[in-house]
Amino acid sequence: MACGRLLGVRKIYVIGIGAGDPDHLTLQAAKAIGRTDVFFLLDKGDTKESLIELRRRMLKAYARPSRRIAEGRDPDRDRTPADYEGTIANWRHRRSEVTEALIREHLLDEETGAFLVWGDPSLYDSTISILDEILARGETTFTYEVIPGVSSVSTLAAKHRIGLNRVGRPFQVTTGRRLAEQWPADVDDVIVMLDAHQTFGGVDAEGVDIYWGAYLGTEDELLISGPLAEVSDEIRRVRAEARERHGWIMDTYLLRRRDAG
Amino acid sequence: MACGRLLGVRKIYVIGIGAGDPDHLTLQAAKAIGRTDVFFLLDKGDTKESLIELRRRMLKAYARPSRRIAEGRDPDRDRTPADYEGTIANWRHRRSEVTEALIREHLLDEETGAFLVWGDPSLYDSTISILDEILARGETTFTYEVIPGVSSVSTLAAKHRIGLNRVGRPFQVTTGRRLAEQWPADVDDVIVMLDAHQTFGGVDAEGVDIYWGAYLGTEDELLISGPLAEVSDEIRRVRAEARERHGWIMDTYLLRRRDAG
Repeated sequence: MACGRLLGVRKIYVIGIGAGDPDHLTLQAAKAIGRTDVFFLLDKGDTKESLIELRRRMLKAYARPSRRIAEGRDPDRDRTPADYEGTIANWRHRRSEVTEALIREHLLDEETGAFLVWGDPSLYDSTISILDEILARGETTFTYEVIPGVSSVSTLAAKHRIGLNRVGRPFQVTTGRRLAEQWPADVDDVIVMLDAHQTFGGVDAEGVDIYWGAYLGTEDELLISGPLAEVSDEIRRVRAEARERHGWIMDTYLLRRRDAG
Repeated sequence: MACGRLLGVRKIYVIGIGAGDPDHLTLQAAKAIGRTDVFFLLDKGDTKESLIELRRRMLKAYARPSRRIAEGRDPDRDRTPADYEGTIANWRHRRSEVTEALIREHLLDEETGAFLVWGDPSLYDSTISILDEILARGETTFTYEVIPGVSSVSTLAAKHRIGLNRVGRPFQVTTGRRLAEQWPADVDDVIVMLDAHQTFGGVDAEGVDIYWGAYLGTEDELLISGPLAEVSDEIRRVRAEARERHGWIMDTYLLRRRDAG
């Protein structure tokens, strides 16, 4: 059954486009953008203008002039749910319905569609599971391919010129919500994503360094690092000012326990 | 003191070049390669011909015709040390001496040098800490910049079309050596790097899926996934055959505990 591309089959790319620097795009991503007929954009009403502009520049540079844009409205979701996982599952389900409708309506037989994902599609992004959910329903058929990208985590480490791990040791990637419960067991290096509440402020700062970054890869990039006890207030202040100025913020950080000397 | 590039200062790039697919190179990495005067290559005598060839192709495509290559011999290290971290620290120290000698000998004032790193420089790579060690000695001065790349971990996830995390949950990246001691506490998703001993075979396979990949991004790429209990033997067999055929293997995998239904 190794028959290459099936007649009439639609193809979808899930393309990691890097954390914010247009030069983080890989050659593979640029080529895939150039092969795409329809770009699917799911935006919330409040999507940040600077991100939309960056995406627009990428399409201008690498997409065919004939490419089409299919825009859908991202379903709203409760940002402070009592049942986090259930709320997300419900939101993904509604999102998959919007996405499926977009695909059915805009992607013709034998055409290629694409979703552009910030950073890397394997890190705290829902596109892959939404496509799997659509395929599992069995009413809309397509093949899809994931194109990895430079993640915000790799960008954070590059800008601070650090490794994510120390020699032979593990590290954990987790969320602000989880860190608020406790420092993960048996690891001294913790990367925190999706933290809207500066959870680092509630961590026992003794012997801990922080490497923090916001708007990574963009012209607005902010980087602060140092002993958590010393720079925690500065990060809160800088973060609040930047959030006020830009109207939004995306940040991530590594917490690293210093080895007992 | 925002004075741009200092007169006479040498610059070094640490460039992530992706996991093995030449198209995983980012535009930023290609541009940095094009600005480099001297490429530093530290190879062991047994470095795999296919990897050397891939690097050669990248330089041919993106480097200046006038670029120079400075080759050093990577110090040997004990592959089965009693004291792992101490042995690595000693090896890094010797490696930093070889590297420092290369920089002093080959990189002239105001020139730009580069190290090409497989995958992403922040993941289980020693280049950054070696440069820090050289700078800390204070005898050789330069500035350096890290350019993030697509990691083997992102590539593994992309090829299997999975997320590294599940909704709102953490994941851990660790080594075969650590996994052999125990499954990490409080995580159900574990990515294993640097595992020469198929440690997955010693894990309690009940309720665990594995997503395994070798030679990721290359023409020789191998992918196997499924319930660990069912595919563990197949992975061992395929891995042994491939290792025999190629003379070397680089592989990584994700172990994922299924949720109790």
